[in-house]
Amino acid sequence: MSTQTEDGEMNQLTHNGTGFPFFSEDTSVEVVNLRMGGSVNPRLKQVMTCLIQHLHAFIKEIELTQEEWELGIDFVTRTGQLCSEERQEFILLSDVLGISMLVDAVNNRHPFGATESTVFGPFHVEGAPHLEMGANISLDAKGEKCLFEGRVIDIEGNPIEGAVIDVWCDNAAGYYDVQQPELQPKWNNRGVFITGADGLYSFYGIKPVSYPIPNDGPVGQLLEKLDRHPYRPAHIHFRVAAKGYRKLITHIFTADSLYIDSDAVFGVKKSLITPFKKCDRSDAVWSAKYNFVLAS
Amino acid sequence: MSTQTEDGEMNQLTHNGTGFPFFSEDTSVEVVNLRMGGSVNPRLKQVMTCLIQHLHAFIKEIELTQEEWELGIDFVTRTGQLCSEERQEFILLSDVLGISMLVDAVNNRHPFGATESTVFGPFHVEGAPHLEMGANISLDAKGEKCLFEGRVIDIEGNPIEGAVIDVWCDNAAGYYDVQQPELQPKWNNRGVFITGADGLYSFYGIKPVSYPIPNDGPVGQLLEKLDRHPYRPAHIHFRVAAKGYRKLITHIFTADSLYIDSDAVFGVKKSLITPFKKCDRSDAVWSAKYNFVLAS
Repeated sequence: MSTQTEDGEMNQLTHNGTGFPFFSEDTSVEVVNLRMGGSVNPRLKQVMTCLIQHLHAFIKEIELTQEEWELGIDFVTRTGQLCSEERQEFILLSDVLGISMLVDAVNNRHPFGATESTVFGPFHVEGAPHLEMGANISLDAKGEKCLFEGRVIDIEGNPIEGAVIDVWCDNAAGYYDVQQPELQPKWNNRGVFITGADGLYSFYGIKPVSYPIPNDGPVGQLLEKLDRHPYRPAHIHFRVAAKGYRKLITHIFTADSLYIDSDAVFGVKKSLITPFKKCDRSDAVWSAKYNFVLAS
Repeated sequence: MSTQTEDGEMNQLTHNGTGFPFFSEDTSVEVVNLRMGGSVNPRLKQVMTCLIQHLHAFIKEIELTQEEWELGIDFVTRTGQLCSEERQEFILLSDVLGISMLVDAVNNRHPFGATESTVFGPFHVEGAPHLEMGANISLDAKGEKCLFEGRVIDIEGNPIEGAVIDVWCDNAAGYYDVQQPELQPKWNNRGVFITGADGLYSFYGIKPVSYPIPNDGPVGQLLEKLDRHPYRPAHIHFRVAAKGYRKLITHIFTADSLYIDSDAVFGVKKSLITPFKKCDRSDAVWSAKYNFVLAS
């Protein structure tokens, strides 16, 4: 009926016939994926095929309306438009949807016993000063002084010599030095330490404080609509690398931090929660002990 | 082992205990979705829950690498950065992944017999001139003249009076007037027609020609990597609206067009492919007959 023309002829033409089915709710995944040509990189083909399957399944399952699609287009458009040299709103989106942590989990299935990894985050800077063990990385004299110490060891508990420990942390106000280049000394709360034969490390810093991820953009608006807060629990970042071992990117979290159960980016793992203890030393208010166990 | 501190104490603290599980490959969907608060709009909650399920399933299934994640972040970032008042690269991305057509399909499950819908596209402009039946919408005197005619009818075949037919089409060079405001007359290949009691419509235009979607951005680069061309088969757009009937947004495609089997945006449906016939009339080279059947 729909295809009958004025003179009674049916519009039921056969098309030029590659044998591909027409697009419909039922065939959509097949039609889109069959369109890829013969010279596609095999891994790209695999990734796109799987992505199309899941995106289409989502739309069918939820019966996404035209209006919701428009809201989605508007959201990703504004997210991209906010990105610049200084701001990566799409990484933030990936973080708050648990995607960054999931990619980390899928790519870091460590042997049992090794220290667990967590998100790298956007605040690492290469080239921090190499310091002697026992140095103080807090250069702005703010916050509660804390002694960090422990060992870098292998799965069997043997000390690892020559492990490079790169540390970075926010200051007492909840900002990294790179977020406040005018207000904080360069390399504030950053440093690189190399272990000796005993695998021991120690340095002074401050007890980390929690802070919100940037929430003045589309991702902040999304969090608000999802009735979620934008805070990360207090943590200090470590990158630990040693020849012959898998590089470890992780945090340690203060056990008493607010938001320890509701990290906006889902970075908390139970094994990374560390008791920070009131210190009886004259040179620090807190102490935290943590061993980094590297997988070979 | 990994959580043992220097003084032998285990870091196995219980966290502050809302009962939510920690994030892991196994729990990721649950952990992210449980984070939504109590005041979330129920439909938003439903959509986000489903989206998280499918995005996480995709990452786990394909075991997305850190490097592939970075490529993905870079791709969506560049796609968003290209968006402006004049360019919507994310809609283009939605189009070439079959998402726009799928949303159309999910939202327009017409009763059998009604004319099928297809994508609206980015080139419609409200306010085109109302014209008398038999008028010529091609104002630049280029292309092969074509007579379009047919009827607007209901499912039972009864003519619909007062149906508003809004038509838009590219010119012989493959561009819409809005893409070439300096080169084409305003409202070139556009017009609005209203049916009388007989439901008949007729107007002159040109036989449509195929054209590429904008392919100088990230979406064009993606198509190239997927070994896909950027062309749409030749078509003319119709929006047909009448009181008491569902609004119809569709194209008719020329049956002899290149790319009829490989529309870059998957807009072709078999029932929309129309034979354009060589014409024996003195005032046109081609004629196309198509009835629009509206669902009530």
